[in-house]
Amino acid sequence: MRIAIDAMGGDNAPDEIIAGALESVELLAQDDQLTLVGPENVIAPKLPPASSRKCNVAVVDAPEVIAMDEPPIDSLRKKPKSSIPVIAKLAKRGLADAVISAGNTGACVAAFQMRMRNLPGVVRPGIAVVFPTSEGPVTICDVGANIACKPVNLYQYATMARIYSKNVLGIHNPRVGLMSIGQEDAKGNEVVKKTRELIKSDPNINFVGNIEGRDIFRGVCDVAVSEGFVGNVILKLTEGVVDGLFKAIKDELVQEKPQLSEEFKPVIRRIYRKYDYNEYGGAPLLGVNGTALICHGASRSRTIRNAILAAKKYYTNKINDKIIEYLAKTSVRTACEQVTQ
Amino acid sequence: MRIAIDAMGGDNAPDEIIAGALESVELLAQDDQLTLVGPENVIAPKLPPASSRKCNVAVVDAPEVIAMDEPPIDSLRKKPKSSIPVIAKLAKRGLADAVISAGNTGACVAAFQMRMRNLPGVVRPGIAVVFPTSEGPVTICDVGANIACKPVNLYQYATMARIYSKNVLGIHNPRVGLMSIGQEDAKGNEVVKKTRELIKSDPNINFVGNIEGRDIFRGVCDVAVSEGFVGNVILKLTEGVVDGLFKAIKDELVQEKPQLSEEFKPVIRRIYRKYDYNEYGGAPLLGVNGTALICHGASRSRTIRNAILAAKKYYTNKINDKIIEYLAKTSVRTACEQVTQ
Repeated sequence: MRIAIDAMGGDNAPDEIIAGALESVELLAQDDQLTLVGPENVIAPKLPPASSRKCNVAVVDAPEVIAMDEPPIDSLRKKPKSSIPVIAKLAKRGLADAVISAGNTGACVAAFQMRMRNLPGVVRPGIAVVFPTSEGPVTICDVGANIACKPVNLYQYATMARIYSKNVLGIHNPRVGLMSIGQEDAKGNEVVKKTRELIKSDPNINFVGNIEGRDIFRGVCDVAVSEGFVGNVILKLTEGVVDGLFKAIKDELVQEKPQLSEEFKPVIRRIYRKYDYNEYGGAPLLGVNGTALICHGASRSRTIRNAILAAKKYYTNKINDKIIEYLAKTSVRTACEQVTQ
Repeated sequence: MRIAIDAMGGDNAPDEIIAGALESVELLAQDDQLTLVGPENVIAPKLPPASSRKCNVAVVDAPEVIAMDEPPIDSLRKKPKSSIPVIAKLAKRGLADAVISAGNTGACVAAFQMRMRNLPGVVRPGIAVVFPTSEGPVTICDVGANIACKPVNLYQYATMARIYSKNVLGIHNPRVGLMSIGQEDAKGNEVVKKTRELIKSDPNINFVGNIEGRDIFRGVCDVAVSEGFVGNVILKLTEGVVDGLFKAIKDELVQEKPQLSEEFKPVIRRIYRKYDYNEYGGAPLLGVNGTALICHGASRSRTIRNAILAAKKYYTNKINDKIIEYLAKTSVRTACEQVTQ
């Protein structure tokens, strides 16, 4: 399998990205190939001699760099030789089976959609993020690829994220919830209400109905379907609450009894490890014609290593074939066509 | 001042509501009057003899009860003699200066809007919730009154929540942020982008630009303007993350060293107290022609007591007069009219 990695993506690029790629080599097969994409004069000198590596690590030159806060579409137009459009082109030309980036999310979504195109039957791709919770992993789709969601998009996110949860996370019959503002049928805006009917009409989906913000951490569902704007707020808010709360705990502990603060450290570390998004590596852009993973901007080598392994699992488990097959079912196709007309 | 309280609202009604009302009596003036609204045969026997009370506590009979999960509009139609429509009518008839309920939020919003009507100039009311954070209180508006927000609604939420933050929370020149999915100007959906221009055009607003989910807890702003659906998810998600994290900490502590868990308890208690939404009592429905506070369904006596005090502060600080005055300014009126046409 050939995996192209954006070596310049994220706050810790290129060092952590390269380190993650090299770490993953030990866990890959001999015929797997990694391609690090970025300015060759920066990347190449950081690689160890070829003989020391089990699988191939190549460099593809991409001399330009897109910053994390550049306007996505603009940056792609102005910097066609930067790592994000270059990995997208590698996928398009069949030179990469998977692409991974921790760079500018908007630029990734735009480039991957534009170059790789959608899987047959998919109206719009969505980003699926796995939230580690004490009740198990919850896959949330979408978290920001599509901020003008229609019912057909949300329904397709339900079907795709369900396939992902089942085949990558190993959850037998994933329970699917629809993010709304109340559990009752009548709650939610028009898009939510129409989506609800659509999901309910699909007997293959183990639908638990509307869910609320708090339900994500309560073991109510394995898949949470969400409009992209809302999903993005959920993602970032959760980070903010966790950081804020740990800070508050630390401040209180120091005040209460500094020694207690020391004793508490391993507990915090264990919690961080257990509920660490780095564990899942990256978030797949479900629905593009290829394997594309987008990682957190703060990714460390471990995140990248895990993203590479996740990409391999996604690819070898033929997630995209399963999505195509599902969306091609007569009943599913008819339902989608009815709401897009 | 005359305050009407829904004695049957919330999971702990009527006992905690009545207890909260009685607790507040000690802190109110002698000429203040509380009216508990609910089935008289249930409420009256729970009150102490009149002579023991500093201010007046009356009961108004409302024999029907709206459950927490009933469809709002339906329930108001079917149960006109329940506490929520009855307190709304008391306000409408000028028999109550403020109304408070911990009951069905949707029914409260519908009844208060329908009976009390909007303040002159207000297009749609919004619920403002105060989040206690380690960086100070952040007022988020709207959290669910309006799930089909237009730019004019969001702009008015910015102006109203700013007046609230300044005059009730005592924040000198509140920094206003607009909830979006990225801090850059270009980020967000169409409603957010138009709202941004509208807020920017108002030189009286100390606008800090777009904010992301994580920023609420980072001391970036004092007021967060949000579409109602998103605000509602934020509210409930935060609850879920906090509960989930404390549960995780508890589980880890018990595993690590049970004694540590005991030592940690006062720290948790202090954090809960410090970041406790009960402290702020209730969330005002900004923009209705009256003082209306909606409390959490899980409200305890302390919440209700604090909501009563918050209602008094809202009323005596003439928040509504300040809102009317602000929205009547030529520049503000023109801006609102331009986007509503």
